[in-house]
Amino acid sequence: MEFLDGRWEKKVNTWEELLGNSLLNQEAVLEGAVHSIRNMGDVAFLILRRREGLFQTVYESGKVNLPLHDLKEGMTLQVKGCLQSEERAPHGRELHIREITVLSCPAEPLPLAIDKWKLDTSLEAKLNFRPIALRNIRERSKFKIQEGIVRAFRDYLYSQGFTEIHTPKIGARGAEGGANLFKFSYFHKPAVLAQSPQFYKQMMVGVFDRVFETGPVFRAEKHNTKRHLNEYTSLDFEMGYIDSFEEIMAMETGFLQYAAALLKKEYAKELSVLKIELPETDRIPAVRFDRAKELVSKKYNRKIRNPYDLEPEEEALIGRYFKEEYDADFVFVTHYPSKKRPFYAMDDPEDNRFTLSFDLLFHGLEVTTGGQRIHDYAMLKEKIAARGMEEEGMEQYLDTFKHGMPPHGGLGIGLERLTMQLLGEDNVREACLFPRDMNRLEP
Amino acid sequence: MEFLDGRWEKKVNTWEELLGNSLLNQEAVLEGAVHSIRNMGDVAFLILRRREGLFQTVYESGKVNLPLHDLKEGMTLQVKGCLQSEERAPHGRELHIREITVLSCPAEPLPLAIDKWKLDTSLEAKLNFRPIALRNIRERSKFKIQEGIVRAFRDYLYSQGFTEIHTPKIGARGAEGGANLFKFSYFHKPAVLAQSPQFYKQMMVGVFDRVFETGPVFRAEKHNTKRHLNEYTSLDFEMGYIDSFEEIMAMETGFLQYAAALLKKEYAKELSVLKIELPETDRIPAVRFDRAKELVSKKYNRKIRNPYDLEPEEEALIGRYFKEEYDADFVFVTHYPSKKRPFYAMDDPEDNRFTLSFDLLFHGLEVTTGGQRIHDYAMLKEKIAARGMEEEGMEQYLDTFKHGMPPHGGLGIGLERLTMQLLGEDNVREACLFPRDMNRLEP
Repeated sequence: MEFLDGRWEKKVNTWEELLGNSLLNQEAVLEGAVHSIRNMGDVAFLILRRREGLFQTVYESGKVNLPLHDLKEGMTLQVKGCLQSEERAPHGRELHIREITVLSCPAEPLPLAIDKWKLDTSLEAKLNFRPIALRNIRERSKFKIQEGIVRAFRDYLYSQGFTEIHTPKIGARGAEGGANLFKFSYFHKPAVLAQSPQFYKQMMVGVFDRVFETGPVFRAEKHNTKRHLNEYTSLDFEMGYIDSFEEIMAMETGFLQYAAALLKKEYAKELSVLKIELPETDRIPAVRFDRAKELVSKKYNRKIRNPYDLEPEEEALIGRYFKEEYDADFVFVTHYPSKKRPFYAMDDPEDNRFTLSFDLLFHGLEVTTGGQRIHDYAMLKEKIAARGMEEEGMEQYLDTFKHGMPPHGGLGIGLERLTMQLLGEDNVREACLFPRDMNRLEP
Repeated sequence: MEFLDGRWEKKVNTWEELLGNSLLNQEAVLEGAVHSIRNMGDVAFLILRRREGLFQTVYESGKVNLPLHDLKEGMTLQVKGCLQSEERAPHGRELHIREITVLSCPAEPLPLAIDKWKLDTSLEAKLNFRPIALRNIRERSKFKIQEGIVRAFRDYLYSQGFTEIHTPKIGARGAEGGANLFKFSYFHKPAVLAQSPQFYKQMMVGVFDRVFETGPVFRAEKHNTKRHLNEYTSLDFEMGYIDSFEEIMAMETGFLQYAAALLKKEYAKELSVLKIELPETDRIPAVRFDRAKELVSKKYNRKIRNPYDLEPEEEALIGRYFKEEYDADFVFVTHYPSKKRPFYAMDDPEDNRFTLSFDLLFHGLEVTTGGQRIHDYAMLKEKIAARGMEEEGMEQYLDTFKHGMPPHGGLGIGLERLTMQLLGEDNVREACLFPRDMNRLEP
């Protein structure tokens, strides 16, 4: 009988070994994809791509078991040779090839010049050839940064006593009413795709006090803009026993600080490849919705057209205002008008035209919506009735409140938007591996 | 201007403070839900539920600002009082109440006796009242264990150089062909829900070498059994530059060992509440599919009816065999017949009726399917043609191989099944917060 014990000896050297000193001037083995070939005549440089980065290998005519013209970009290889110090090479190392084993061979040349530092092509082409375009070092770095954000979200919330949950994406109805839902037939029953884990995360506050989820949400919105996706990853949390809705903003601030620290520590390579400057997270200003509108109206001489709504241009100006006045990258806008928030939002007891809620703007773009929720059964029913909504389909959600819920609130962060702003991109599709919009369902 | 700096002073004491010695015989403050009330006459015990566990508080008539009959189960409270040592109380501590502030009040009594140690009700009732039933300490502990598994999966793979990805759940077609897919209309285009991230994770191996995803998958299977869900959480990874398909099994073994260690360290409370004995992960036996069938046929005197398939009963017997013969909780069954595996599975070059693939059985139930994939473009096209399948809709997937892919393979783990087996439950619905099956779409 064979047994697996969890160990596996690789016959190739690790990245750390290749960059360290222990193998210098000795034989080393490296595997990777041929990222580019620079033929200088008697010598050629084969740049291999690994998950850790690019590594320079040197092909010297007559010293290798394969002719140079047998090699092409897109191949994957195992190369053996002498590891040498070379100041001009990336990481100060290069491998002088003695023996090549071809692991795999492409059938056709690449459709994009992925070895260019900046991919010189349209967003449309990048998305059409997504699995190839992402082989570019800058392109793929964006998604390491995204990984860092998600990791930070989870790790920070674990440290704050949150429990991770997995809630269903198929349901009988949506959390915010019937609009913008993808509908389908589930074994002959009408079903929808979840536009948010809102109801579920609230229900789970009654169980775990503090919960979070990182997962897909689906919005059938007919917006085709640079900041909308029809499927995106939502970072959601919900917490009970809050002292006030500001406690939720404090928790988000803590997460942002933790994320900045984690990126600095574990993703320094990608921050440098993408030339990202981490935003200021030590102190994040908070301003009331109505006050923010006044401030930008005054400073930028812009008339307030609708006192109950923020237009995207106004959001951008609020971002600009707080950058100029306070050198702030983020700003919390609080006390959104009640009529612009869902029924479960807690109205401000001091002025019920407004809610105990907030958005977080990052360089002038909304990346988070959050706030305190109604936890009292009677108040929730009243609000539903006052809005002329039906309770049908919400029985289980309402029952949770009927049997007691602590004061609570939470938020949802759009992962791709947060990533996009951090990267300084101007289209959210740049921050999504395989975006879904009104026109794009593939790849 | 107000600023958030990430700090928030809670006016209540932490769990650590309540269990420590620094507050003994002093005033302490605690918040929680009234889990149960035991009225002994002059004295009543109010057991409060917090995310960390249950805490005993003592109500002494005449010493509290509220009459006892105003208190009921399901309320959430802030209580102030004197923290005392009490050997008979859980954690050896109790709080003698001086002042109660009611945070929230239920409208109706609970429909289930959640304060019982074991919820004395049917699975059907538990699922119908899911948000309430989960308030039971044993019930909710199951999902802390589940959290530990997912955490371990991610943390172990991060440590092994994997990148986390988020792939779309809405697509133009499925990874394994047209059967068992939920179909719907996506802005007037036919779309399906992803039954697996298979194609995407393979495509991303060309970018990051090693990738993983933890997310929902959707199967429109008309199975109504104790081990099937129509939506579940899949733990997927895919790795390039593998030496052989056994390397994938070694990686999974490493994850299982890491998970066992993490659960022991961070989830000891829940392991003890649920009386879970961690399975043996030091050495996991691996047996060929055909050999496994022979072994159980011989030992349990069972005729082999179909040499190309494993029936659930046979899986159970293989689990029993390896428990009896090797004291093994897990067993890898390798070399599944080619006709039972999808087109992208790599056939065994030594006998192409079989594949370089495996399932992992845990106490006789399949919890993982994995294996090496075809990485050569021509071979992939041949296999598709040989199966009489169409390439239509798979162009982007195939193009990835056309432009070069390393040898690779991976696996998918059913999170709920793995949790179910670890818990010793006999229905997978016990290990899913809000299960979706042919009859259940709510809550």
